[in-house]
Amino acid sequence: MALIVMKFGGTSMAGIERIRGVAARVQREVAAGNQVAVVVSAMAGETDRLVGFCREASPLADPAEYDVVVAAGEQVTSGLLAIALQSLGLKARSWLGWQLPIHTSDAHGKARIGTIDADRLRAAMAGGEVAVIPGFQGLADDGRVTTLGRGGSDTSAVAVAAALKADRCDIYTDVEGVFTTDPRIVPRARKLAKISYEEMLELASVGAKVLQTRSVELAMKEKVRVQVLSSFSDAPGTMVVDEDEVLEQELIAGVAYDRNEAKVTLVSVPDKPGVVATIFGPLADGNVNVDMIVQNIAKDGATTDVTFTVPRTELARAKAILEKAHDEIRYERLVTDDSVAKISVVGVGMRSHAGVAVTMFRALADRGINIQAITTSEIKVSVIIAEEYLELAVRVLHTAYGLDAAA
Amino acid sequence: MALIVMKFGGTSMAGIERIRGVAARVQREVAAGNQVAVVVSAMAGETDRLVGFCREASPLADPAEYDVVVAAGEQVTSGLLAIALQSLGLKARSWLGWQLPIHTSDAHGKARIGTIDADRLRAAMAGGEVAVIPGFQGLADDGRVTTLGRGGSDTSAVAVAAALKADRCDIYTDVEGVFTTDPRIVPRARKLAKISYEEMLELASVGAKVLQTRSVELAMKEKVRVQVLSSFSDAPGTMVVDEDEVLEQELIAGVAYDRNEAKVTLVSVPDKPGVVATIFGPLADGNVNVDMIVQNIAKDGATTDVTFTVPRTELARAKAILEKAHDEIRYERLVTDDSVAKISVVGVGMRSHAGVAVTMFRALADRGINIQAITTSEIKVSVIIAEEYLELAVRVLHTAYGLDAAA
Repeated sequence: MALIVMKFGGTSMAGIERIRGVAARVQREVAAGNQVAVVVSAMAGETDRLVGFCREASPLADPAEYDVVVAAGEQVTSGLLAIALQSLGLKARSWLGWQLPIHTSDAHGKARIGTIDADRLRAAMAGGEVAVIPGFQGLADDGRVTTLGRGGSDTSAVAVAAALKADRCDIYTDVEGVFTTDPRIVPRARKLAKISYEEMLELASVGAKVLQTRSVELAMKEKVRVQVLSSFSDAPGTMVVDEDEVLEQELIAGVAYDRNEAKVTLVSVPDKPGVVATIFGPLADGNVNVDMIVQNIAKDGATTDVTFTVPRTELARAKAILEKAHDEIRYERLVTDDSVAKISVVGVGMRSHAGVAVTMFRALADRGINIQAITTSEIKVSVIIAEEYLELAVRVLHTAYGLDAAA
Repeated sequence: MALIVMKFGGTSMAGIERIRGVAARVQREVAAGNQVAVVVSAMAGETDRLVGFCREASPLADPAEYDVVVAAGEQVTSGLLAIALQSLGLKARSWLGWQLPIHTSDAHGKARIGTIDADRLRAAMAGGEVAVIPGFQGLADDGRVTTLGRGGSDTSAVAVAAALKADRCDIYTDVEGVFTTDPRIVPRARKLAKISYEEMLELASVGAKVLQTRSVELAMKEKVRVQVLSSFSDAPGTMVVDEDEVLEQELIAGVAYDRNEAKVTLVSVPDKPGVVATIFGPLADGNVNVDMIVQNIAKDGATTDVTFTVPRTELARAKAILEKAHDEIRYERLVTDDSVAKISVVGVGMRSHAGVAVTMFRALADRGINIQAITTSEIKVSVIIAEEYLELAVRVLHTAYGLDAAA
């Protein structure tokens, strides 16, 4: 017998028929002798509807009241799932964020989970009752409702699993697990049986949006074994676990990409101490997220070129800020390019293997794909290329690292 | 400076534009120097949507979970109104049922309000903050969410007004107040400036659905001065107050009617002790609401006819129950008529005046309208007539009691 937490997203909760499907899945786990807590999202579209009301009421809606409004979405689905479970003959009840409670910081709209009082929950579950918990919501110390920000239900599920010391936290999504790359680009992409927390984090941060980043960080910190699997199939999913548990250690776990990139180059910036601060200080103040930064060595002993990437949606803002700061930075020209993409290979195996980057550079060079910028971390190598080569590059790298499924 | 409670129903809260209108009304009261608490319903249609989800999930939905689901509707509007008030520059916050808390019984779906902890509320209001309170919801002693049943927001408002010792409880509706009768039938019906609690109760119970009956009972018990007025006009409404305050005491306050009536007659029932119990016992067990009961004297010393009315929607059930109980009751024939209507004249003044009933009987007889049954209470006389005469009878009585407005 195991204690498991199951989490279902908005697509799985969209309407009573689907909620019944969720109840049937929960029933199977109970029938298998498991103790089960379920964390649910609002019905697909409902959070957007509620957020829309708040914005319409005031573009600067009070975050504390915003939380009161949007938390209602998960309250509804948690009650409905409890009803659906009961109609299958199971014992079940909902536990709202303030009832457990799930203590959070008071940063309304983006609160962080603190402690969860799980004693009553554990007692109820030990008595054979399925606990249904609305994701995304909690209670601040002043007794007011908080929410965790979009996608926060994954984090709620992991936090509940940690508090319950659950054997597993199953996150049901609309994909069957974590793949070596996007199957829409590479038909021979493989579903991974296991992946480490670190790899999952790197994949999430480069655009493979299967799990919310914070939930993976929390799982890693609390050593919660997370499974990503599909609500719409019975196939086993991908286990996200500690590195030690990833038995068949692959060199590379996957190839990720991100189209939401734009490149900015400041040509002929004076090469002297403090100049980088004059560039990135104003960008940070303007809330522009700078990603990769490449600074070449001085060309002529006096000036250098600085290249960096920003999310494509922030390019116009970045440009305006840099143009305004021209007299301070004293660059010669500002060149931007919004048709670039980032490709990353990720794998804990590369820590102990030289040559991972070399394989990447050669494979791309063989196809005439020019690399415009490079960054590396302990378990990731990322490059910027022209966006038109994106699909080709992903396929080439997937093959180069031996990730293709057997034909 | 006064302390007032304002209550807005679902039509007034239907969408952000209307919520803004509500906020503007609240602002006017604050600008006039009043301390204000606002009790709100869910957006029109929202409670039906949520109830629909529960029924679809299970026809026998757990009332405790049903309450979790449907309470979300008022939670949303209370947050949205707080946001709208803030955007007008007012201080405002929502106080959910569990936050005050509004203590109720644990009869989920039809809980009764017990005490309300109003200390924090009073302190916040004294500090110039508008308190926004979702109607219809509360907290049971076991810490679970309760709701009061449909229309419960009126009761919430009166209970909050009682707890705050408010000077007035303004109930905003889609009518301009309480009228001497239905203006659609009698164009010369007059809006009453004042009406007593007792009269309001009798009018509510015979189908003039302006206020929920329980809210009037509570107002009478707690001596809360209630005003019924329109959200869509600036005209003063009707004050529902203690009898002593109704200065220009009219003989009759109004003429009410109810089309939802059906008549049942059991012909030739044995006239002996206990027979009435054999009729109404099974009906009560079957949850049929019996209204007027008329038992004639024995016709032949051995049998009698028993006539009573039930809501039209319950006639089929009543008939089935009585047919099943035939051998026990031993009636000769069962006759039903679902084309009858009830007309009532109501007024505290009739206590001290004989002849009110006589005026009624004469006025109806003059137009050839046959009275099929009569009941009286201290401040009400009701008759059953054929439904086809309903409009005529209402007009005749309105004139006979001198209620017509000056032409």
